Amino acid sequence: MRYTVGCHLAYEVEAETVFIFNLEVARLERHRDLRETVNLIPALPLRRHVALETGNRYVAVTVPPGRFSLDYAAEVTLDPHRADPAGIAETPVKDLPLAILPYLLPSRFVSSDRLAPFAQAEFGDTAPGFARVTRICNWIHDHIAYVRGASDEETTADETLLKRAGVCRDFAHLGAAFCRALGIPARFVSCYADGLVPSDFHAVFEAYLDGRWWLFDATRQAHLDGLVRIGAGRDAAEIAFATPFGEMTPTGMEVRITRTDGAPETGERTVAAISTAETGPDAEGGLA
Amino acid sequence: MRYTVGCHLAYEVEAETVFIFNLEVARLERHRDLRETVNLIPALPLRRHVALETGNRYVAVTVPPGRFSLDYAAEVTLDPHRADPAGIAETPVKDLPLAILPYLLPSRFVSSDRLAPFAQAEFGDTAPGFARVTRICNWIHDHIAYVRGASDEETTADETLLKRAGVCRDFAHLGAAFCRALGIPARFVSCYADGLVPSDFHAVFEAYLDGRWWLFDATRQAHLDGLVRIGAGRDAAEIAFATPFGEMTPTGMEVRITRTDGAPETGERTVAAISTAETGPDAEGGLA
Amino acid sequence: MRYTVGCHLAYEVEAETVFIFNLEVARLERHRDLRETVNLIPALPLRRHVALETGNRYVAVTVPPGRFSLDYAAEVTLDPHRADPAGIAETPVKDLPLAILPYLLPSRFVSSDRLAPFAQAEFGDTAPGFARVTRICNWIHDHIAYVRGASDEETTADETLLKRAGVCRDFAHLGAAFCRALGIPARFVSCYADGLVPSDFHAVFEAYLDGRWWLFDATRQAHLDGLVRIGAGRDAAEIAFATPFGEMTPTGMEVRITRTDGAPETGERTVAAISTAETGPDAEGGLA
Amino acid sequence: MRYTVGCHLAYEVEAETVFIFNLEVARLERHRDLRETVNLIPALPLRRHVALETGNRYVAVTVPPGRFSLDYAAEVTLDPHRADPAGIAETPVKDLPLAILPYLLPSRFVSSDRLAPFAQAEFGDTAPGFARVTRICNWIHDHIAYVRGASDEETTADETLLKRAGVCRDFAHLGAAFCRALGIPARFVSCYADGLVPSDFHAVFEAYLDGRWWLFDATRQAHLDGLVRIGAGRDAAEIAFATPFGEMTPTGMEVRITRTDGAPETGERTVAAISTAETGPDAEGGLA
Repeated sequence: MRYTVGCHLAYEVEAETVFIFNLEVARLERHRDLRETVNLIPALPLRRHVALETGNRYVAVTVPPGRFSLDYAAEVTLDPHRADPAGIAETPVKDLPLAILPYLLPSRFVSSDRLAPFAQAEFGDTAPGFARVTRICNWIHDHIAYVRGASDEETTADETLLKRAGVCRDFAHLGAAFCRALGIPARFVSCYADGLVPSDFHAVFEAYLDGRWWLFDATRQAHLDGLVRIGAGRDAAEIAFATPFGEMTPTGMEVRITRTDGAPETGERTVAAISTAETGPDAEGGLA
Repeated sequence: MRYTVGCHLAYEVEAETVFIFNLEVARLERHRDLRETVNLIPALPLRRHVALETGNRYVAVTVPPGRFSLDYAAEVTLDPHRADPAGIAETPVKDLPLAILPYLLPSRFVSSDRLAPFAQAEFGDTAPGFARVTRICNWIHDHIAYVRGASDEETTADETLLKRAGVCRDFAHLGAAFCRALGIPARFVSCYADGLVPSDFHAVFEAYLDGRWWLFDATRQAHLDGLVRIGAGRDAAEIAFATPFGEMTPTGMEVRITRTDGAPETGERTVAAISTAETGPDAEGGLA
Repeated sequence: MRYTVGCHLAYEVEAETVFIFNLEVARLERHRDLRETVNLIPALPLRRHVALETGNRYVAVTVPPGRFSLDYAAEVTLDPHRADPAGIAETPVKDLPLAILPYLLPSRFVSSDRLAPFAQAEFGDTAPGFARVTRICNWIHDHIAYVRGASDEETTADETLLKRAGVCRDFAHLGAAFCRALGIPARFVSCYADGLVPSDFHAVFEAYLDGRWWLFDATRQAHLDGLVRIGAGRDAAEIAFATPFGEMTPTGMEVRITRTDGAPETGERTVAAISTAETGPDAEGGLA
Repeated sequence: MRYTVGCHLAYEVEAETVFIFNLEVARLERHRDLRETVNLIPALPLRRHVALETGNRYVAVTVPPGRFSLDYAAEVTLDPHRADPAGIAETPVKDLPLAILPYLLPSRFVSSDRLAPFAQAEFGDTAPGFARVTRICNWIHDHIAYVRGASDEETTADETLLKRAGVCRDFAHLGAAFCRALGIPARFVSCYADGLVPSDFHAVFEAYLDGRWWLFDATRQAHLDGLVRIGAGRDAAEIAFATPFGEMTPTGMEVRITRTDGAPETGERTVAAISTAETGPDAEGGLA
């Protein structure tokens, strides 16, 4: 599956603003033949950073007052790992790579400590494995309404549970929180998502099972085959598509994704488990 | 200054428990001649992990039911960098290494987003620089009572502000939160602390100013010269001295620190700024 | 059914303390032949107050430093109104006495506004009537564990929902919150409860249906036939058995209830709906 | 001082809605020569209720789908009690009328229990009396910004303290919370307010000192001489100007107040303490 993706972001900058963007397609073994361009108007110098633990790609730019826009365009071929969900077990904590510890801990929006009693009560007796995480996703889908405007940038997973409503960000936070509360490492993933209507950046979560990160989307708004990953992190704060420091007003935003390999869009959604992240974070490099 | 430090931790394990410990002295350039031993009873295999971004040293052990204890002993010479506080400026966001971004973001217990209005109102007009962070520490010292038992492991910085009471963990979370809310990178630091009564693990925070991490202790319970660092992280969750997964009961705990270089303990506290962490996290490695 | 009830409360008063007690049996038409005594040691003057809206009976005493105890003993015959639950409908808001408005509003611990989405999602489609409130009680019983020490005096209904655990106070707050969120007036009721083990003050809630207040106990710890009511209010704060202002330490507490009419204790619990409060609060008096 | 006040409220009702309004001028001894009219379009039957404990005047109307409007107009002469603030002492709890207890307790938005440590730390050492409440108002004025849109209908006093911003409702909740936390009875008061720009319903709070309720306005947006009281209650929920049950959309709202006694508007604000409520709630009626 080959996709072209991209975005256009425009701002009116009132006072010098440092933008940190995380919107480029992740460089992964299973993201093949990635070609991409970033275009800034006005042309300003970029600083780049790749986070060691996650491989997240950050771009920073310092923008003087005035109009500013960023255009990103990329092509990439997805070659996801697939497996039969029935054969995917949970990894006992004692066998987890230690580098994965952060994804067992609560973070700002993934309040897994506050949700531990709820997770235990609802999912503690479910047989461990891929199917348990699927059950978590189904539970979220059945209990949380997808409602634009139901949350804001400070909404936590426990608040979403009470509000019974949220957007993709909130669904991903809640899914990750339930997993962490059960001892399953989980992280927040941002992506371009084929089929999402209206087009926008999307958020899903990954659970670490049997030595891999597997994708889960409790919103059911996009198919897992069509997720072109950007970043992965503890929660939304870490991989916001734009983190501005300064004074500015967003004036426009477009997000695009198109399948370009000529394969017919069947509209069917895979029933296989899908993984695009081979290993845990810094699993080799970090062991001493 | 040479110190011997150590701890003894004992547990009654009821069901197989995985412990992840973060209690060994950090390997830093300014921690010289570090010698150390870890002793487990019963003798069980250890797994080790050094986090890439922070250098935090984690040790994991899987313990069967029964009694279990860990003894750690180390000697280390501190060679901190000192500077005149008056000459230490804040680093504008545009000049920060991008790897430092996580320490500007809110985390589970460092709720800097919720505290942003409070921080702006109290400290927004203070002249930037080392003295502003000192002012934050003084404010915390004057407004928050040090009260054992005033908080628990889920207490966040905003709750501490309301409760007007906490322990070292809470003082450090609040200090870091105010800093992050003002655009000053800050992180939570665990340590052995000379002079702390009664002896215990201690928590302080570091602010990133002028290209270095500087130590701050809003509790004023120990002197900055006598802090032997263990770990640094977003908040307490990331560097708990023990993170157990299983069923166990703590049955004993001792924490020791003694100055051994024969220098007289003057009882005076330095007025210099103190730094033991040279650079930002993965500042070189991560730039692409 | 005739009951003798009583309590013994003892305190060590360190500095002059004003106690406001709400522990006397409510004076209700369906509480017949009430005889009671209050005994204070030392003998101190009492002030009494009966709240106009609720009939709650408050006793205040100002206690100098030293030992202090209160003994209360009462006998009362319960003559509850019973009805077939199937015939009890909800009262549309337009037909409610206006005096009942406070019991539709959120209060400190009955956070019905925060729980509105949850209540709508779980119970919004259930057919209105007594059975809907029974379903709320069953849901609470099935989802919340009765755990001593799981909560404290600041715990709110939404926190109980997240913690999945609480005591009678929390069960009653959550039941009342779900009701108010659905437009069913509900209030918190304190009582002596036959069959409660260990003996203690008990808390249940009442819902206003078809012109009466009906008792509900989501804990299932006592039978509705054996509830000797003390007070009713918005939530626990309003009818705490003791509200002290000063400095004191509780040193002893006993709560007693015994059935004395010679009728055999069958151990069976009624399946009828039970009401001891005839009308809404100040329903007549307040209409202008 | 004679005032004409009034309001116009318009709604588009989508499904039958019960409105409970609390917008009529309070009937108080110190509100003299009150003349008033209520006009509904369409003309629908009204139900009225006067709350026993507070004297609050509620009007209920059940409105079918379609347009609906209410017009209220009144004339009233204010004859406030005035006193020298210096002579107004706090009333010890032991001397308070028991009916006043609810105004010492936390309520949904007046989270005085959560704010107790903060209140004690800031105001616990201030000499008791009228001046202490004035100090609370000054503190709020200096620390909380008046910002429209900074809060919503679920905002509590502790949240306002963290956000450092709010509207009149939030200022009144916070003032009342600090008072209750210090053992000073306090309640929330809604009113028409001369001088408020733009004209709107206003909220202030009252503290009970020396046997009377005294008005305080931490916003300093209106003068105490020009407050024409509507209702008083535990917090905003109890005396919302409109509490609708149903489906409707507000389509218009105007609030008016004009001084009509020909006295020149001096623009000066009184420095006297102002009270319009003679006694505590049901102080006589409720004592038994």
